Amino acid sequence: MHKGFTLWFTGLSGAGKSTLSNMIADELRRRGVRVEILDGDEVRTNLSKGLGFSKEDRDTNIKRIGYVCKLLSRNGVAAISAAISPYREVRDFNRAEIGNFIEVYVECSIEALTNRDVKGLYKKALAGEIKNFTGISDPYEAPLNAEITVNSGKQTKEESLAVIMGYLEKEGWIPKPGVKESSTSACRA
Amino acid sequence: MHKGFTLWFTGLSGAGKSTLSNMIADELRRRGVRVEILDGDEVRTNLSKGLGFSKEDRDTNIKRIGYVCKLLSRNGVAAISAAISPYREVRDFNRAEIGNFIEVYVECSIEALTNRDVKGLYKKALAGEIKNFTGISDPYEAPLNAEITVNSGKQTKEESLAVIMGYLEKEGWIPKPGVKESSTSACRA
Repeated sequence: MHKGFTLWFTGLSGAGKSTLSNMIADELRRRGVRVEILDGDEVRTNLSKGLGFSKEDRDTNIKRIGYVCKLLSRNGVAAISAAISPYREVRDFNRAEIGNFIEVYVECSIEALTNRDVKGLYKKALAGEIKNFTGISDPYEAPLNAEITVNSGKQTKEESLAVIMGYLEKEGWIPKPGVKESSTSACRA
Repeated sequence: MHKGFTLWFTGLSGAGKSTLSNMIADELRRRGVRVEILDGDEVRTNLSKGLGFSKEDRDTNIKRIGYVCKLLSRNGVAAISAAISPYREVRDFNRAEIGNFIEVYVECSIEALTNRDVKGLYKKALAGEIKNFTGISDPYEAPLNAEITVNSGKQTKEESLAVIMGYLEKEGWIPKPGVKESSTSACRA
């Protein structure tokens, strides 16, 4: 049984949280680590139907994700949260609750996001057509002390992935590739 | 790594769901099984604040517990739900979603519950002072095909515990006492 942990992504919409989460999940599974991704949309369907995008509702949503991450990670799972989670205070609340908490800031400038703008949301938000759009018409509080920072405007996905995996290996959260855990530690259920 | 499963208690308030859940959790942990109890009250605080006791709100609450049980049990945890869960349809929804689902009906007559009535709730409910009180002023739909039925009006706690543990052993969900799992299966992470 591996040591569980929570990999908590934060960053603006479109910055690449879900993409990176899926890449990391694949890589972790290849190494025999159990993984669950708590994606913003899936969680809003399963845990937070009816909540909106006010600060209070966003905080409630993020605390619920944190609660589930806590249950998973204390049972040996790598729980990955890929929700925007714009507010610092509630991220820090989850950090304190969960313990094995690794914050990953996926940085990206509004300019780069607007150029990319796959769904056309940034143009609409900049035109004032979307209320409560994080980073434009709603606050985003970047982490002050994230364990890991990547920048999807300046790095390729593969480079960001390597940064995150490198951190997890270096800090002993996951086995290095090709290194089988000893049966003693693997059986420490 | 053990096979995960969900032990889904259902029964009236005061029937003994939480008491039995805690006894089973202790026994499972003694046998090296990872356990999480999703208790009605704890879940209402962490996942369902703001929900009331209408059918719709109760169903939403029960589905959320089911979602968390699914995530836990597919990762090798014995997830125990101890909420009343009065409606059959939503229990069956969770059964289908989760798969490794074992329903435990904690039966107890209203008469026995009223005689016991530790918190005085049944007397109040029977006097019409509590709205939406399951079994009195709100429906309770007993399971039709629960894997396990115990009766806390007729059995001691210890007897009920033995019935549940006996089922889990017989069906191979948990190791028998004193039987260590082989390292192969224990390490099948």
